[in-house]
Amino acid sequence: MPENSCHAPTVVTCTAPVNIAVIKYWGKRDEELILPINSSLSVTLHQDQLKTTTTVACSRNFQEDRIWLNGKEEDINQPRLQSCLREIRRLARKRRSNEDTTGDVGILSQKVHICSVNNFPTAAGLASSAAGYACLVYTLAQLFGVEGELSGVARQGSGSACRSMYGGFVQWKMGERPDGKDSLAEQVEPESHWPELRVLVLVVSAERKPVGSTSGMQTSVETSRLLKHRADSVVPERMEEMISAIRRRDFAAFGELTMKDSNQFHATCLDTHPPIFYLNDVSRRVINLVHRYNRHYGETRVAYTFDAGPNAVIYTLQDHVKEFVQVVHHFFPPETKVGEFLKGLSVGSTSLPEELKKAIGMEPMPKGINYIISTKVGPGPCVIENPGLHLLGPDGMPKKSA
Amino acid sequence: MPENSCHAPTVVTCTAPVNIAVIKYWGKRDEELILPINSSLSVTLHQDQLKTTTTVACSRNFQEDRIWLNGKEEDINQPRLQSCLREIRRLARKRRSNEDTTGDVGILSQKVHICSVNNFPTAAGLASSAAGYACLVYTLAQLFGVEGELSGVARQGSGSACRSMYGGFVQWKMGERPDGKDSLAEQVEPESHWPELRVLVLVVSAERKPVGSTSGMQTSVETSRLLKHRADSVVPERMEEMISAIRRRDFAAFGELTMKDSNQFHATCLDTHPPIFYLNDVSRRVINLVHRYNRHYGETRVAYTFDAGPNAVIYTLQDHVKEFVQVVHHFFPPETKVGEFLKGLSVGSTSLPEELKKAIGMEPMPKGINYIISTKVGPGPCVIENPGLHLLGPDGMPKKSA
Repeated sequence: MPENSCHAPTVVTCTAPVNIAVIKYWGKRDEELILPINSSLSVTLHQDQLKTTTTVACSRNFQEDRIWLNGKEEDINQPRLQSCLREIRRLARKRRSNEDTTGDVGILSQKVHICSVNNFPTAAGLASSAAGYACLVYTLAQLFGVEGELSGVARQGSGSACRSMYGGFVQWKMGERPDGKDSLAEQVEPESHWPELRVLVLVVSAERKPVGSTSGMQTSVETSRLLKHRADSVVPERMEEMISAIRRRDFAAFGELTMKDSNQFHATCLDTHPPIFYLNDVSRRVINLVHRYNRHYGETRVAYTFDAGPNAVIYTLQDHVKEFVQVVHHFFPPETKVGEFLKGLSVGSTSLPEELKKAIGMEPMPKGINYIISTKVGPGPCVIENPGLHLLGPDGMPKKSA
Repeated sequence: MPENSCHAPTVVTCTAPVNIAVIKYWGKRDEELILPINSSLSVTLHQDQLKTTTTVACSRNFQEDRIWLNGKEEDINQPRLQSCLREIRRLARKRRSNEDTTGDVGILSQKVHICSVNNFPTAAGLASSAAGYACLVYTLAQLFGVEGELSGVARQGSGSACRSMYGGFVQWKMGERPDGKDSLAEQVEPESHWPELRVLVLVVSAERKPVGSTSGMQTSVETSRLLKHRADSVVPERMEEMISAIRRRDFAAFGELTMKDSNQFHATCLDTHPPIFYLNDVSRRVINLVHRYNRHYGETRVAYTFDAGPNAVIYTLQDHVKEFVQVVHHFFPPETKVGEFLKGLSVGSTSLPEELKKAIGMEPMPKGINYIISTKVGPGPCVIENPGLHLLGPDGMPKKSA
């Protein structure tokens, strides 16, 4: 833990990943503590392509806690931000009193400045709150010297943030306790477990902002009979099946269950009153495309999943990624070439067999997909050692570039 | 029952209505007998706007059973057609042996010619099989002098056809017997019960033919966990609620439950693997429009329901129909005037309050809806006495106009 004896702020910078659920989280049993009605499971995406970077500084000169998100100062008094700050400070105080070290209690009475940016456009419609809260909690913990289980704190910022506290394949066990102490994330397998697994984020052009997930899931819990049945009776066995498929690296089982669970989540949104729609006509075309592609090959080579928006996330294996990118490019012809259409990990090029195009047999839909981000499974949050990468300057204010 | 002593064919012509379910039928427990996994409930639409007309002729001169649908000869050997013909002939034989009348047994050994037309374009995407099979069974029964319960025969042509055997508000009780003898339609209230109730069919322009309902519901039964829960645990209480709402003429209760059940049906389609989509972006806009319209007035004035296709059927009350038609015309501006946009019962005109347009606050979507058919609750099948309206001529062949 860094120390400051002079007036210069103590500064820590970390990064944290985005995660994409394959068994979906939808619905809280406790709004305050953010306790879910079912367990969920996600894949952590690689930070080379998608990450949040957060710098936290503290100094006795700071008058108040402040936060800047993507270059804009935001209200630090949001209840969920306050929960995370309060919890981390509580854990830091607890740790110090246990260790009976009194020398650095000062830092806990200091105010913090927080600055956070995403390396992906907000317009991409990717849920950034999971990476954001995971990064905030991880960075605060570094600053205050808090170690050990932190997913329970991240969870209180944004439910799915708890899963971004680990790399690889991560489950969030719903827990049973009313105080939420057992509602924590846990790594199922590390990022090295399944090196062939690849991820494509298909960024769909959406007309407007859909219903937010916080209010959406609240309405679902209140009105959807099917959601209750899903949480009580369907998800428990799906969690076991999914963990087993991942352990065995069984792509067909993993992919089929991923698609079924995405569709069931969206089904419960439609069973909500009034109904919530996250999938649009482009999303539905992607779904049809994937099923026709797999049917052509007589095996599950590609699987889709959709969160609370129209973007598709595709899971596939290294051997098939190149062809599937071409398929997407063919059936959603962009204005740009494949090179500009595809961001992130390069995939190499290939030409499409005519019989594949014919078997899919869909009318191409120009500009339905803006671009693809190509990535893979990645590690959990990291500390950035290079002080040149801090987002806050020596004055504790955001650097111009941040 | 008409008789023929010479060689001229015996001819009967009847009409039967379309019905639109408010508690949906989706899924069979017996494919052969067409026995459903849950009860359902529908409103019979008025035949002035939507009907099937069927003429059946029999003659000792006919060499074989034949059928013409909408001007085109079709295969009489379809299993479902054969089920209906066989059942009606069996009932006729049974009745005659009971009555010990032997004089007219001859008619039963004669072949039939069947000619059937709809007064609405097939392109409208309205399920015509319910009206079609109801009309076929009703007409055959007239010809052969069969009386009494016929919905069990119509059910074996097309499940929902059993509900078109009655006017007004009709439930199809799923029954329990393996032989289906108790899986019958029953009138809940006659068409005169709720004279203020009005129906608007919003014909949406669809790109292509969706998955057929027979194969769709089969896949749903095999793969959707949510469908099973719906059928077992949700529909039984909804049937009671719906019957009570109709008896009380409580539009808010009727409308809310109608919308919820439509959405739950489409949710189970989405939970099917691979998923089935019947709603498109226009359907979803209609759904949002209805909820915003109702929210503006702080009460449920309008309700939607969708079958296995993108067309919306709107239930509302006489007092609101005029304004809602204008709302649809405003937010889905057609190329034509309101006059041509609206077919069927006239509704009168009105101007839209600016604050209503603002409250709905949607971007108008030109040509999303082709036209509206305005209708109301109507009676069950009828016999057409005027021989000029027979679809088959004295030679037993379709008249040119049919």
